[in-house]
Amino acid sequence: MRKDIIVSSRVRLARNIAKHPFPNRLKNEEAGQIVKDIRGILSEKKYTYIDIKNNSRLDNLVLVENHIISAEMLKGEIDRAVFLEKSTEASIMVNEEDHIRIQSIVKGDNMEAAFKYTSEIDDKLDKKLMYAFNSEYGYLTACPTNVGTAMRASFMIHLPMLEVTNQIKNAISFLGKLGIAVRGMYGEGTEAKGSLYQVSNQITLGQSEAETIERLNDVVTQIINQEIKIRNKLYSEQKIKLVDEIYRAYGILTNAKLMNIKEGMLLLSYVKLGMDMQLIDKTFVNEVDIFDLMIKIQKSNIEKQAERKLQATERDEERAKIIQSKLLSDFGR
Amino acid sequence: MRKDIIVSSRVRLARNIAKHPFPNRLKNEEAGQIVKDIRGILSEKKYTYIDIKNNSRLDNLVLVENHIISAEMLKGEIDRAVFLEKSTEASIMVNEEDHIRIQSIVKGDNMEAAFKYTSEIDDKLDKKLMYAFNSEYGYLTACPTNVGTAMRASFMIHLPMLEVTNQIKNAISFLGKLGIAVRGMYGEGTEAKGSLYQVSNQITLGQSEAETIERLNDVVTQIINQEIKIRNKLYSEQKIKLVDEIYRAYGILTNAKLMNIKEGMLLLSYVKLGMDMQLIDKTFVNEVDIFDLMIKIQKSNIEKQAERKLQATERDEERAKIIQSKLLSDFGR
Repeated sequence: MRKDIIVSSRVRLARNIAKHPFPNRLKNEEAGQIVKDIRGILSEKKYTYIDIKNNSRLDNLVLVENHIISAEMLKGEIDRAVFLEKSTEASIMVNEEDHIRIQSIVKGDNMEAAFKYTSEIDDKLDKKLMYAFNSEYGYLTACPTNVGTAMRASFMIHLPMLEVTNQIKNAISFLGKLGIAVRGMYGEGTEAKGSLYQVSNQITLGQSEAETIERLNDVVTQIINQEIKIRNKLYSEQKIKLVDEIYRAYGILTNAKLMNIKEGMLLLSYVKLGMDMQLIDKTFVNEVDIFDLMIKIQKSNIEKQAERKLQATERDEERAKIIQSKLLSDFGR
Repeated sequence: MRKDIIVSSRVRLARNIAKHPFPNRLKNEEAGQIVKDIRGILSEKKYTYIDIKNNSRLDNLVLVENHIISAEMLKGEIDRAVFLEKSTEASIMVNEEDHIRIQSIVKGDNMEAAFKYTSEIDDKLDKKLMYAFNSEYGYLTACPTNVGTAMRASFMIHLPMLEVTNQIKNAISFLGKLGIAVRGMYGEGTEAKGSLYQVSNQITLGQSEAETIERLNDVVTQIINQEIKIRNKLYSEQKIKLVDEIYRAYGILTNAKLMNIKEGMLLLSYVKLGMDMQLIDKTFVNEVDIFDLMIKIQKSNIEKQAERKLQATERDEERAKIIQSKLLSDFGR
């Protein structure tokens, strides 16, 4: 069950180059030089270079929805770029809040891999650049809350039952006191949608990367156990109602002609719960990656696929079609 | 469209035998004699005799749900019976409010047939019995509101759009002033369910049977035209939303594991609308008789099929299965 509840594991490292001011004080020419320098280091073919400043707005919004760049990155005015490395689900943002932000989002419960992948890129850059590093504090960052390891590790977890029983609110406030942040699918300030929550460390000072990950892992294990406990209780007490809800969600998703994002996320969350609890006939949903589908039905992803700007109703229509093309494939009914 | 909107056409004739008091003053022995006399007249094999007093309660409730006998008939204490004649969808109640009530419910828009079938039985009985008849007033009945032709003609019509736009309420109050009653699927005092309305004449005095039917037909034509007008308007202005609603109803009906009667009727009404407006893929629903299905999902029909008394949740479970077995047959998805 744990492996289903943990949708993905993410590590993000923030790094800055000692000789340059932080991006918020960076002249455009110098920003361009940083991009150029890093492009020189990440010159292998496996790194795809994307010039954010000259990329279309729609393509950039798709990158945000796909968790490859932050929404923050779209606001900048200086030269900035992102490098993608597919095999490790890694991306390196240049000139976001810090000069360098390395992240890797690995599917499922695999923080070790995410840490390994980001560390490898970190090492590669470290060899060629002089990082802003203080022997007492650690890595220096634009925002003091990142100083130290400058690492944020986060698990994306699916908590429909903690949400429906309203227990998630208490959990969030309790975890905040332990230095653990719980945010929605699209980070700070976004509403949790599809019952997906990013759980991440807030503390970067005074503990090692390994300690941070271990601590985060302990907390996430407890949250997941609580989620499983409610699932099991519901299963034993109200199985038929639960199955009914799940099949209704499936029935609406596979038949509706209009689907807004809020409802789509909610219903997909139910279907995912049904798959994970083995309450829905496998042949109905094949091995659909619900989290992937949740991203594909986001606004900009839909517009990108349609290759044009869409009215709200057209978008809801496309969204319904995308969902149906995924759920009703070969083996689906 | 008219032929789809009119679900059925019904005629009911009330008759009494001159030598006996009305059923509310009838001794049981005399009641039994009436049943016996009529059984003698309707002795052909095509008439199925059912002894209501000695019939099981569940079987009687099924007869009520199937519109073969009235709910009123279950309350009596004297001997009473019903005769069924399948080929003309006719039934003859003995010792309900009147000694004899002959009805025929014909599918679709065919009041002529319903009137013909009831008249044939009426003639057959008239030959052997001395009816309570007054040359000035006409047929005498237990309740003065039936005196005269003692005929009630009614169309069962499907008015989802008049209902959703709330126009049905005004129509009901307006028609009441014209001596036309509009009731729910199960007659007086019942809430209209599945957007089905019985529209019948209230006036039995001072007009012939033919005039009554003609007048009723005119009124029903106007109601239907209004319903069609709203359907067409909605189709031209909000087609996608309408299709969405219809497919959602279909999706829930074909996937839910629990279905209560209220929701079932509502969703089936949407599917019927979709079929009649040709907005739903024919292969999805085959030639399902939605009205027939609406009856099959009533409480007692379900219990009869399950052959036992069911808890509410079990009944909702059975209801969902019955709907799915009908909607998802051979050619259904």
